Amino acid sequence: MAKPEVSKKEKQPNVESLTWGNLTWVNIERPTDQETEYLAQNYHFHPLDLDDCLSRIQRPKIDEYKDYLFLVFHFPVFNKQTRATTASQLSVFIGEKYLITLHKGELKPLVKLFKECQIDEESRQENLSQGSSYLLYRIIDRLVDYCLPILNKIVGNIEEVEDNIFSDSARGAVKEISILRRDIISFRRIIWPIRAVIGSLEPKIRRFTKMDLAVYFGDTVDHVDKIWDALDEYKEIIEGLNDTYDSLAGNRTNDVMRMLTVIAVILLPITVIASIWGMNIPLPFQNSTHSLLFVFLIMAVIIGGMLYFFRRKRLM
Amino acid sequence: MAKPEVSKKEKQPNVESLTWGNLTWVNIERPTDQETEYLAQNYHFHPLDLDDCLSRIQRPKIDEYKDYLFLVFHFPVFNKQTRATTASQLSVFIGEKYLITLHKGELKPLVKLFKECQIDEESRQENLSQGSSYLLYRIIDRLVDYCLPILNKIVGNIEEVEDNIFSDSARGAVKEISILRRDIISFRRIIWPIRAVIGSLEPKIRRFTKMDLAVYFGDTVDHVDKIWDALDEYKEIIEGLNDTYDSLAGNRTNDVMRMLTVIAVILLPITVIASIWGMNIPLPFQNSTHSLLFVFLIMAVIIGGMLYFFRRKRLM
Amino acid sequence: MAKPEVSKKEKQPNVESLTWGNLTWVNIERPTDQETEYLAQNYHFHPLDLDDCLSRIQRPKIDEYKDYLFLVFHFPVFNKQTRATTASQLSVFIGEKYLITLHKGELKPLVKLFKECQIDEESRQENLSQGSSYLLYRIIDRLVDYCLPILNKIVGNIEEVEDNIFSDSARGAVKEISILRRDIISFRRIIWPIRAVIGSLEPKIRRFTKMDLAVYFGDTVDHVDKIWDALDEYKEIIEGLNDTYDSLAGNRTNDVMRMLTVIAVILLPITVIASIWGMNIPLPFQNSTHSLLFVFLIMAVIIGGMLYFFRRKRLM
Amino acid sequence: MAKPEVSKKEKQPNVESLTWGNLTWVNIERPTDQETEYLAQNYHFHPLDLDDCLSRIQRPKIDEYKDYLFLVFHFPVFNKQTRATTASQLSVFIGEKYLITLHKGELKPLVKLFKECQIDEESRQENLSQGSSYLLYRIIDRLVDYCLPILNKIVGNIEEVEDNIFSDSARGAVKEISILRRDIISFRRIIWPIRAVIGSLEPKIRRFTKMDLAVYFGDTVDHVDKIWDALDEYKEIIEGLNDTYDSLAGNRTNDVMRMLTVIAVILLPITVIASIWGMNIPLPFQNSTHSLLFVFLIMAVIIGGMLYFFRRKRLM
Amino acid sequence: MAKPEVSKKEKQPNVESLTWGNLTWVNIERPTDQETEYLAQNYHFHPLDLDDCLSRIQRPKIDEYKDYLFLVFHFPVFNKQTRATTASQLSVFIGEKYLITLHKGELKPLVKLFKECQIDEESRQENLSQGSSYLLYRIIDRLVDYCLPILNKIVGNIEEVEDNIFSDSARGAVKEISILRRDIISFRRIIWPIRAVIGSLEPKIRRFTKMDLAVYFGDTVDHVDKIWDALDEYKEIIEGLNDTYDSLAGNRTNDVMRMLTVIAVILLPITVIASIWGMNIPLPFQNSTHSLLFVFLIMAVIIGGMLYFFRRKRLM
Repeated sequence: MAKPEVSKKEKQPNVESLTWGNLTWVNIERPTDQETEYLAQNYHFHPLDLDDCLSRIQRPKIDEYKDYLFLVFHFPVFNKQTRATTASQLSVFIGEKYLITLHKGELKPLVKLFKECQIDEESRQENLSQGSSYLLYRIIDRLVDYCLPILNKIVGNIEEVEDNIFSDSARGAVKEISILRRDIISFRRIIWPIRAVIGSLEPKIRRFTKMDLAVYFGDTVDHVDKIWDALDEYKEIIEGLNDTYDSLAGNRTNDVMRMLTVIAVILLPITVIASIWGMNIPLPFQNSTHSLLFVFLIMAVIIGGMLYFFRRKRLM
Repeated sequence: MAKPEVSKKEKQPNVESLTWGNLTWVNIERPTDQETEYLAQNYHFHPLDLDDCLSRIQRPKIDEYKDYLFLVFHFPVFNKQTRATTASQLSVFIGEKYLITLHKGELKPLVKLFKECQIDEESRQENLSQGSSYLLYRIIDRLVDYCLPILNKIVGNIEEVEDNIFSDSARGAVKEISILRRDIISFRRIIWPIRAVIGSLEPKIRRFTKMDLAVYFGDTVDHVDKIWDALDEYKEIIEGLNDTYDSLAGNRTNDVMRMLTVIAVILLPITVIASIWGMNIPLPFQNSTHSLLFVFLIMAVIIGGMLYFFRRKRLM
Repeated sequence: MAKPEVSKKEKQPNVESLTWGNLTWVNIERPTDQETEYLAQNYHFHPLDLDDCLSRIQRPKIDEYKDYLFLVFHFPVFNKQTRATTASQLSVFIGEKYLITLHKGELKPLVKLFKECQIDEESRQENLSQGSSYLLYRIIDRLVDYCLPILNKIVGNIEEVEDNIFSDSARGAVKEISILRRDIISFRRIIWPIRAVIGSLEPKIRRFTKMDLAVYFGDTVDHVDKIWDALDEYKEIIEGLNDTYDSLAGNRTNDVMRMLTVIAVILLPITVIASIWGMNIPLPFQNSTHSLLFVFLIMAVIIGGMLYFFRRKRLM
Repeated sequence: MAKPEVSKKEKQPNVESLTWGNLTWVNIERPTDQETEYLAQNYHFHPLDLDDCLSRIQRPKIDEYKDYLFLVFHFPVFNKQTRATTASQLSVFIGEKYLITLHKGELKPLVKLFKECQIDEESRQENLSQGSSYLLYRIIDRLVDYCLPILNKIVGNIEEVEDNIFSDSARGAVKEISILRRDIISFRRIIWPIRAVIGSLEPKIRRFTKMDLAVYFGDTVDHVDKIWDALDEYKEIIEGLNDTYDSLAGNRTNDVMRMLTVIAVILLPITVIASIWGMNIPLPFQNSTHSLLFVFLIMAVIIGGMLYFFRRKRLM
Repeated sequence: MAKPEVSKKEKQPNVESLTWGNLTWVNIERPTDQETEYLAQNYHFHPLDLDDCLSRIQRPKIDEYKDYLFLVFHFPVFNKQTRATTASQLSVFIGEKYLITLHKGELKPLVKLFKECQIDEESRQENLSQGSSYLLYRIIDRLVDYCLPILNKIVGNIEEVEDNIFSDSARGAVKEISILRRDIISFRRIIWPIRAVIGSLEPKIRRFTKMDLAVYFGDTVDHVDKIWDALDEYKEIIEGLNDTYDSLAGNRTNDVMRMLTVIAVILLPITVIASIWGMNIPLPFQNSTHSLLFVFLIMAVIIGGMLYFFRRKRLM
């Protein structure tokens, strides 16, 4: 009898579960065909839903069935190396007596919460004793709050760029602005559909709990809205900074041009006069002992005249 | 009696059909007047609908009649040569016992599905045994999923452009950005009206089937929404990349200007001093043996002074 | 008795009418006070409506009264000389037994349709035999379809601009883009309010006909929506082309700058060295027979060094 | 008894009134505390409303009370000197038997209408005989129509700018565009809230009249919408013109750059060759009688070569 | 018995309260855990609300409970040093007999109002005698009106920037525009969610008062809308000014370029001719006494020719 069990274990390596009272929390990291087959055998889920757990092109949504709800969430995960925010999928089956979470293990707050409940009985009680809906609230709340440090990181980067732009080290700011902008765009696209899903979640999972969760979910919706507002603001700010950068770069080009012109105005007349007295033809003052002085005087007069002319025309 | 039959065949060259149980799938590639006349003779369709199958200025829509529905879809087809995404029309007549599809043969997944059903009986059963509505779902689902490789191609191109922009080969990126931008704009315009049509389709074709297709069509709508979201994001990203390109090009112009200025600052003073000692008038140190050294010293002092001045004014 | 009749004719020179069965189509080109007075005497129209027929600041609208409807449409007319699309007003009074159209004679399809019905009895029957509502549908349908060649003209111009931008003749493209952009903006402003009017027209004129016109008007609304979608797309494309033009112009300026720099880097060192040996002071190699060779060698070394330096700094 | 009356007059210098039948029109120009106190003593208005008549931060609105309505309108007034459109407030109290208008005297059509009614009895009858609602309609209609000459002025300015941009006098166009843009923005902000107020006005003042004013107010709403549409279009056009101006300015900079380059390509080689033969070392052809010819030939060859090279590289 | 009281005082240092009739106003500045614990002990508030008072990521909102309402507002506070507008939170618990306000002490009008009521009995009566709802109105009204001087400051800054842009001191305008833009963006983000909260507040707090507050709150909503409209307008204006600045900067660069070109056109030919006559080869007019005159003539002809050529080509 031992062997079949072993083979069974081989088939479902990533299915972990916790139980408190009536409620079981099944957590599946990095789901594959094996895990969805396991679910298909043990629960009566719609085959399309099981496909969706593995698919890469899902959108956050709520699918209602008689006995259970199938939820898909996307939460932002910040990749430090590529400096990009990408969406990580969390699929949830919620019934009265079970909550099944499927994800790729990138959502750290969820992984941590599950571990806490595994190790610490008090934590298990706190999260699981109020029914599956409350457990779901606890998970979502943690994941939403996890967005805040990412937001703060963005604010920090924006402020750094702002300081750089007006300093001398403005150069690198273009790349920084470009990366930040793309990151904010991606982040917004992830948050946008979650708002609708979390906003309409509470009435649908009310039946799985005796507790009144409206205030709790209302609070979470407020947080998501706050994140959305902040991202909107950041998007406008970063676009404004891009415009400012361009204006300042235009100024800098203008400065260089003016410098060139100043050099030209001062040095060219000298060359011109010197060339004239360099000609191999009879020239005035040529044999005077003060000839150099005369020539320098002429140069000074021409330079002075040009400077005066351009200043007056406000060209310099 | 043979001749009339031949002439009849000449009249309807592109009408192919499949039957399973009650359901007949009529597929017409590249419809012309001949084919619509054939339909007019065999079915009681509204003349405006038959016109619409041939017209070029349709918009995706659902026209409801007592016995049948007339649907027009536009799906994106990517033309590799022109690198442009264009819309290809699919006209559908759906009744309880028939599904008639008219298209130009550009929609490969549809052509392939029809062929599969022709050749493979199992496939025919799988697609046709659940009534005309389910068959329609199968066709639309395939066509929607066919958009994903086009999307992935766009993402790939965007990432390539992004890499190019910050490298030295930024030059060609303008054209690349322009083409991508136009392609994304066209793609969005094609997807936009399909969303509404597919979203409102299920309740209208419910009567042609015993199966509950709500979950299936809900899934397809999610996919279309996902495509729309992605295109929206790509549009914002490509606009951001265009701005970044311009900022970087501004930087590059500025670099060239600075280089010119550096050259001017170093070489012009030498020329000036050399011109002065080239004058045919009595000059200081003229007859000294170290005159060249004196002159070089004067040049070095002037260049040094200018460099110091411009550095201090942060103009260089 | 003759004189009064003549004077009466003098008063209403531009009122033409057609009759078939119960229905009379009154067509008034270039209406003035005379024509509206004629209408005021023969029909019981609201004075504000008659004013609106002559006013220049109308907006497309439907005014409902017990016996009749007063409609104002604006259709785009393309002026080849100014290359601008302007709105031309069509005012319509529709009752059960009459349809009165007032316009400036610029709407060619309407003028043509009226002439057809005057000359050709078959055409008269086809258009007038189904009641005033159907006649109205025929007129609107022709006028909407008349927008398509204007659209195609715009597409053609956009493609031409696109080709020009990437070719050497990019210069003139700015003016072309500016004119196209303004034209598209005007066109959109004309189409925008028509959509709402045509979309809500059918239920209001249903009472004047026995025919079911819902499908017909639905088709026309689809065409107007298609035109709107197309204009929206063209607007986005032309804005994208403007950005592309600017990016390419920036590139071109950069190219010219680089050329200037290359010239400076090659020619200035030669001048500098030549000036030095042009000084009237004792110089090295001055009396050697290979002095020119030595000097050229020094020039070549300096130019080479500068080219190497700038290439390495990726400034050239 | 005379004195108190005089003092009373001193207290209410700007209250003028007209009466026809039951209806009294009270017109107050430049209201101050004195005038609102007068109203407070004679009518039972809400103190907040009286405050609003004097306040500067109102928004167009309708406040309904049992006996009367309090309306705030803002109409655009064009200041020729500053070339800016600003909002001028009109506060209205309307009851069954009175209409009280408070404004700063800047709304010329209103001032003129009141004067007409004072002087001309026929005009008084025409405007006041149909109840307070009709009088209100007459006032608003005049004020709305008064926007049209301002609009026409803007169109004229836009067309002037358009002509300037493509001519040689493009310089001043920036300032012109900037002023026009700001003016259009301000104008839109004034019209925007009036639309809602006028649109919802008719049902609320129906009770003060026996006449059916729906058609009249519908007409006014159409005019306001027309103005809004026009301003929207102008905003888009002026933004497009700004882009066009920038593209053309880029072209012009490019032209100047090219000219500089052409000068450099022609003159620098001459200087270079001349400098070489100016060196104080043994030079070829130095003693030939045709030496100048030889040197000019070398110059011509170098210039020709450079021109050929740059033309071929399409840099010039 | 003294000691416990002291320790109690230590626990609640920042809780101040006012009473008039039934109503108590509790004001808590800079709330910490101590203060929320104090509230938890004395009132039956939901623990989530008490958390929200201390949290930094709230959004303006209304949470309704049976006995009380919990409100969160954010009002703009302008920091003179950083020149940035930031949001300052005001948390309010409102019941029939109490109003509890928690804030960081940055909202000066609120601090001032509380002090007035502490010191001046008349003021206390005026604000507190009408129930908690009216007191809340008084607080919000003051805080909303406090936005107006900030708005006026922004308008002043915009006008200053506008004047600067067209003057010679345009340089610093970029930074000014950038700071103003960011400030307006932040301000808008703060006002946006308050609109919804204040707009829906009145019906929810009606039960705590006998007075009809609808007109009062309607007035406050109008003020908030006015602020919103103004900020929207300022945002458009500042974006327009940024565009204008860029166009003008482009003009200025062009001017400098032209000046350089003028210098080049005048000075280079002189140098060229002088260099030619500086060659150590036989030259024409070399021994003539008027040789210098001849040479100057040649220079003048060349300069004149170039000026004529470029003027004709409209390049200068």
